[in-house]
Amino acid sequence: MSLATLDTSQHPNLPRSSETLFKAKASKKLSFEQIANHIGRNEVAAAAIFYGQAKASPEDIHKLAALLDIPPPTLEEQLSGFPDRGRSVEMPPKEPLIYRLYEIVQNYGYAYKAVLNEKFGDGIMSAISFSTKVEKETDKDGNNWAVITLRGKWLPFSRF
Amino acid sequence: MSLATLDTSQHPNLPRSSETLFKAKASKKLSFEQIANHIGRNEVAAAAIFYGQAKASPEDIHKLAALLDIPPPTLEEQLSGFPDRGRSVEMPPKEPLIYRLYEIVQNYGYAYKAVLNEKFGDGIMSAISFSTKVEKETDKDGNNWAVITLRGKWLPFSRF
Amino acid sequence: MSLATLDTSQHPNLPRSSETLFKAKASKKLSFEQIANHIGRNEVAAAAIFYGQAKASPEDIHKLAALLDIPPPTLEEQLSGFPDRGRSVEMPPKEPLIYRLYEIVQNYGYAYKAVLNEKFGDGIMSAISFSTKVEKETDKDGNNWAVITLRGKWLPFSRF
Amino acid sequence: MSLATLDTSQHPNLPRSSETLFKAKASKKLSFEQIANHIGRNEVAAAAIFYGQAKASPEDIHKLAALLDIPPPTLEEQLSGFPDRGRSVEMPPKEPLIYRLYEIVQNYGYAYKAVLNEKFGDGIMSAISFSTKVEKETDKDGNNWAVITLRGKWLPFSRF
Amino acid sequence: MSLATLDTSQHPNLPRSSETLFKAKASKKLSFEQIANHIGRNEVAAAAIFYGQAKASPEDIHKLAALLDIPPPTLEEQLSGFPDRGRSVEMPPKEPLIYRLYEIVQNYGYAYKAVLNEKFGDGIMSAISFSTKVEKETDKDGNNWAVITLRGKWLPFSRF
Amino acid sequence: MSLATLDTSQHPNLPRSSETLFKAKASKKLSFEQIANHIGRNEVAAAAIFYGQAKASPEDIHKLAALLDIPPPTLEEQLSGFPDRGRSVEMPPKEPLIYRLYEIVQNYGYAYKAVLNEKFGDGIMSAISFSTKVEKETDKDGNNWAVITLRGKWLPFSRF
Amino acid sequence: MSLATLDTSQHPNLPRSSETLFKAKASKKLSFEQIANHIGRNEVAAAAIFYGQAKASPEDIHKLAALLDIPPPTLEEQLSGFPDRGRSVEMPPKEPLIYRLYEIVQNYGYAYKAVLNEKFGDGIMSAISFSTKVEKETDKDGNNWAVITLRGKWLPFSRF
Amino acid sequence: MSLATLDTSQHPNLPRSSETLFKAKASKKLSFEQIANHIGRNEVAAAAIFYGQAKASPEDIHKLAALLDIPPPTLEEQLSGFPDRGRSVEMPPKEPLIYRLYEIVQNYGYAYKAVLNEKFGDGIMSAISFSTKVEKETDKDGNNWAVITLRGKWLPFSRF
Amino acid sequence: MSLATLDTSQHPNLPRSSETLFKAKASKKLSFEQIANHIGRNEVAAAAIFYGQAKASPEDIHKLAALLDIPPPTLEEQLSGFPDRGRSVEMPPKEPLIYRLYEIVQNYGYAYKAVLNEKFGDGIMSAISFSTKVEKETDKDGNNWAVITLRGKWLPFSRF
Amino acid sequence: MSLATLDTSQHPNLPRSSETLFKAKASKKLSFEQIANHIGRNEVAAAAIFYGQAKASPEDIHKLAALLDIPPPTLEEQLSGFPDRGRSVEMPPKEPLIYRLYEIVQNYGYAYKAVLNEKFGDGIMSAISFSTKVEKETDKDGNNWAVITLRGKWLPFSRF
Repeated sequence: MSLATLDTSQHPNLPRSSETLFKAKASKKLSFEQIANHIGRNEVAAAAIFYGQAKASPEDIHKLAALLDIPPPTLEEQLSGFPDRGRSVEMPPKEPLIYRLYEIVQNYGYAYKAVLNEKFGDGIMSAISFSTKVEKETDKDGNNWAVITLRGKWLPFSRF
Repeated sequence: MSLATLDTSQHPNLPRSSETLFKAKASKKLSFEQIANHIGRNEVAAAAIFYGQAKASPEDIHKLAALLDIPPPTLEEQLSGFPDRGRSVEMPPKEPLIYRLYEIVQNYGYAYKAVLNEKFGDGIMSAISFSTKVEKETDKDGNNWAVITLRGKWLPFSRF
Repeated sequence: MSLATLDTSQHPNLPRSSETLFKAKASKKLSFEQIANHIGRNEVAAAAIFYGQAKASPEDIHKLAALLDIPPPTLEEQLSGFPDRGRSVEMPPKEPLIYRLYEIVQNYGYAYKAVLNEKFGDGIMSAISFSTKVEKETDKDGNNWAVITLRGKWLPFSRF
Repeated sequence: MSLATLDTSQHPNLPRSSETLFKAKASKKLSFEQIANHIGRNEVAAAAIFYGQAKASPEDIHKLAALLDIPPPTLEEQLSGFPDRGRSVEMPPKEPLIYRLYEIVQNYGYAYKAVLNEKFGDGIMSAISFSTKVEKETDKDGNNWAVITLRGKWLPFSRF
Repeated sequence: MSLATLDTSQHPNLPRSSETLFKAKASKKLSFEQIANHIGRNEVAAAAIFYGQAKASPEDIHKLAALLDIPPPTLEEQLSGFPDRGRSVEMPPKEPLIYRLYEIVQNYGYAYKAVLNEKFGDGIMSAISFSTKVEKETDKDGNNWAVITLRGKWLPFSRF
Repeated sequence: MSLATLDTSQHPNLPRSSETLFKAKASKKLSFEQIANHIGRNEVAAAAIFYGQAKASPEDIHKLAALLDIPPPTLEEQLSGFPDRGRSVEMPPKEPLIYRLYEIVQNYGYAYKAVLNEKFGDGIMSAISFSTKVEKETDKDGNNWAVITLRGKWLPFSRF
Repeated sequence: MSLATLDTSQHPNLPRSSETLFKAKASKKLSFEQIANHIGRNEVAAAAIFYGQAKASPEDIHKLAALLDIPPPTLEEQLSGFPDRGRSVEMPPKEPLIYRLYEIVQNYGYAYKAVLNEKFGDGIMSAISFSTKVEKETDKDGNNWAVITLRGKWLPFSRF
Repeated sequence: MSLATLDTSQHPNLPRSSETLFKAKASKKLSFEQIANHIGRNEVAAAAIFYGQAKASPEDIHKLAALLDIPPPTLEEQLSGFPDRGRSVEMPPKEPLIYRLYEIVQNYGYAYKAVLNEKFGDGIMSAISFSTKVEKETDKDGNNWAVITLRGKWLPFSRF
Repeated sequence: MSLATLDTSQHPNLPRSSETLFKAKASKKLSFEQIANHIGRNEVAAAAIFYGQAKASPEDIHKLAALLDIPPPTLEEQLSGFPDRGRSVEMPPKEPLIYRLYEIVQNYGYAYKAVLNEKFGDGIMSAISFSTKVEKETDKDGNNWAVITLRGKWLPFSRF
Repeated sequence: MSLATLDTSQHPNLPRSSETLFKAKASKKLSFEQIANHIGRNEVAAAAIFYGQAKASPEDIHKLAALLDIPPPTLEEQLSGFPDRGRSVEMPPKEPLIYRLYEIVQNYGYAYKAVLNEKFGDGIMSAISFSTKVEKETDKDGNNWAVITLRGKWLPFSRF
């Protein structure tokens, strides 16, 4: 199995922690599934920490340092701030896999809005009070299917 | 309950079928859930037909015409071609609800890619061999949660 | 005193309700302060309804129709859907007054983030569970000052 | 409590003073509240100095150097010029917290303009003769609310 | 001498007042100099009113209606609101004359900033408390020179 | 008085001469007014040389080297080519002071064109056969006003 | 031989004169060569008048009206103002023929600048004091070659 | 006479050969006219090689190496590939001289197309089977004129 | 089988001929294959004529008018000019099918260039002396494959 | 014959493997045809690996390392992850050869869609289950023609 890696020459705007973490991951030959299991988080969240898109708790940092053999002070220093999110993908995405997700928003955006509004009223699905996961299904013909679940709190617009 | 409507002055680039369908929907006071049940499709797909983002089968057209009291030849003519997708949302989306979905792609795009690549290999989750649904959950504190599921066939890159 | 008006030739993408409401407002010579008092909402919210950026409740519609002498069914039909927000201002804003607000975000964006993160942790100030108001102050030298208050619920990022 | 930090690999266009100041802040483990109290300025202003968005007076520089243990000549040299504002946030902002502020301008821009024009006449709220502050409120249910106040001098358009 | 005219098919986003005013100007064969003299304002300001970029006072409206033979109520209605500025020129400007002004900002922007900052301190030249004029000079060789003067109040950044 | 400085980390695309000149200016603590007087040019032109936006004559180079204690061959080599103009400001400008100049073009562009065309005929005001200056005025209430004068040769479109 | 025509549905932003002129040209079946000969101008200039990119003199208008059987007052009214240039081509051009010209600028822009600067000094080739022509050559193998000549006055940058 | 030079800090995306060649040109104090004469090519082509926009033949490389005192293997290695054209000018061009050429395309694009189509039929003027040259003319009043000639093969669209 | 249709509300910038042709095609229930066979051209070329992207010869017009029952003078008038190509697709394409073609260029663009340069030398594959076709293949598992062939003349860059 | 090379100063965002591979290719003086034959893949695929746009299998890596004399562990490390596609070409492409491919999509995009939809129904041609090749043809007049074949699996939109 191949592992996801990071080539910093392609991602010059990611935080230094990304380089530290991906380098150690490659050296330890660990998958995000293994890392996620170790720190007790979802593997998308684990990957998001690696890309500087999610905050690691002190305990996460502790466990990551141990698993990946990174000196804890280094990781603490690099992960102690607040993530500066949104810098990993340049929009519209050029990467084909990520573009497909973007295309889903482009094509079905108003359909989601119409259905959500009718089900919940005037508001939005939060992307903050939010979790997501990825699952793999194989149908009876042996085809693989990716299933991504997005779960966000419904926030009604305040009346003022 | 309010129903989703269409103001064509805000969507000058949608196909004429969108105006026909939304006008009849408003007049009949039907929700997408009711429409979807009637034609036997998912409500996101039903809404996508209304926004010109999904193809209606001849049987769908027949049932929609009946339910919405639209002369079948009118609907047939307006829905007989192939959808010219991607024109309903201008990217980046300005609508807050749709922006949240876009933001999820922006923030978690590479995390999804990393996890999917490790689970499936080199390829993409199809947005064509694809279905999606919206569900509503209410937690024990009475908070509502929106759950959107994306399910697409995994397509490995061909070797050539 | 001059009143805010709408020239639809400059705003071709606003919903039809905007034209209906602004026309009646001009004819009745009412300010947003008067309208807001009548419907019991903040005047920014009242103006946002006029620009298609906030949802009017059935009671709001009832009161607006009465105050502005608009046939209730017309207003009900035009305001019954869910607002398709974000279409009134083209970004970056060209209007000098609105540009100044944009510039505040451009200049102080990271300063707000740093201060908010230190005060509240990792999260965002909601723009949905949110209210805002405008006030006028006059200092002892007779200068006028505009005071805009933004108040949003703090949403911490979920751990998953 | 976590402190706001700066990862210069994510902000290559900030002035050198930003790196100097944030490095010292991290090393001294000081919050912007503490720093602001020390120099007698608002904490948003203090953070803005760190991001190169506000001018530090000679006295500010003196106090910052003392508090942060930075050699005064270094800080004087790096902060002696005039801020080259507007380079910290790339618009539209990708950072979710900053995007919410941008979205408020996008959604309520014309509502603010209409209300301000009716209250003050033809002009703008200055973003230069301007101050801002951030406050934290906790409601009776224990929810936190962020309150941002923008206060700017009203500038009427000159007649010429 | 040719007169400046407006072809609304090239400026679909200008307010209706622009069409009314330019039509009457063409019919009366009046220059902006004549119009400006009549209403007692600078000719750039007069032209700016025609393009919807400056506010006309009630007295201006009265005088314009008389000079241009426009029914006063029509002009009052069309000019009674607050200008929605910034919509006449699409940036970067494609019109060669306007592009030259844009190019001056592009080439000399930082030189102006450096000189203004050294002369006045940290702040901006207001574009609101502002007037401008155009003059014609002919040198001894018979060459014509255009002289544009920009005069704006200096606004220092507030300390907060 | 503060002096204008250059932080090359904010201006990575300026020529090497900019760094050389600004470094020497900071070290010598000279204002652009002093430098301009020394080389016998307008201070905007002097600043423009520093930002790589104007050509220095051999005599200018000689005088600048002497005043700023720069080895003449270094300055000759760095300033001997032809300026590659237009790279100092990214448009639309994010810097508030420069944005105000841009806004003047955006708001008054067509008004200038109309007035200039009526005064001079079909043509443009040159930005090449062009000079500009900045002056400071103080009114009787003690307010400061910045006055920028733009003077360009009128170029009529050729008939062919 | 086919003639150049105008489909206004593809050029909604051209002035009304363009429609008037092209309609008459199609009806009279005249080429730009014939029109140019009739009015005594270059055929590129003639075509530029048709696209609203060049000014027609009163005599040009008189001759065009006669040749094309357009009522002189109609043409006078539509052509009496000053051209609002730059609106016919959206940049980067999508039309393949025009794109090739754009590509020449993109590829050889700096080569032209270097050669022109060395030949003429610091300045520009004017696009205003400017003429252009198109010629056809056929080589001995029967291949056709298009030759476009650009001739502009050299404008040196003023020293100030 | 000044010579064209290259400041690589302003052109970070040019190939390494550009730095090598311009450095040697500055050191040898050669103009493009001299270089072009030496290698037997047009001076625009010579400059284009320096900017990485044209291919040098083995013989060109040999002659350039000799004239400029560059070790032949260095130049061979740096010039042996195929030019990656289009990277020297960022469009729209900010450089005033290059912008004028761009403006000519913007203003006269459709006029050229109309005239070329009527002269040659449906097709394009090639920018590949193409040559160009720059000439200097001085009129009887002593004014200098730049003349740029573009000569491209006419390619008719294939019928298929 | 469904037929390709045109909804002009989604394509406001296509020429009038597109509406005429697609309307008749829908009414006659003809596929592009049938139309192409009738006029003796490739079906991509036939569709390109319908979208205003290819020129119809007088004989094509004659045959199309006959097949589609369109009055010949109408079609002659609408198709007699030269196509104004490039206006049918807004780039980057939002339509999923067209996006896939765009993505192929984005992903394999430099690979094509490298292989073509090594096979043919320095030059381009013409998109003008060019033909293309679409074929359908079905493999032994019953899967359908689309095969698009692009065939263009190789144009070497001229030496000058 | 010249060989395709890579100048990393023009492609700062390509992965490190690109530099490694192109450097070895230049040193070994190998064409993509030779490389492709050695690893048993199509030469476009081989070039795509060099540009970081296609995944190399472990066997490909093994063979490339041997052919190019690169230490296998280096190549394994640099090629072991999943390609981050789409970063080699900036769209719209500035390179003339690649632009021609882009122009084909721009001009014929809807024609392809119409023909494909009529042949296959509602769906897309996959760019993932996809192969492509480049061939050279010489016609009887000695002209060279490039033939690019795109072959992708047809994916019908799922009904849901």
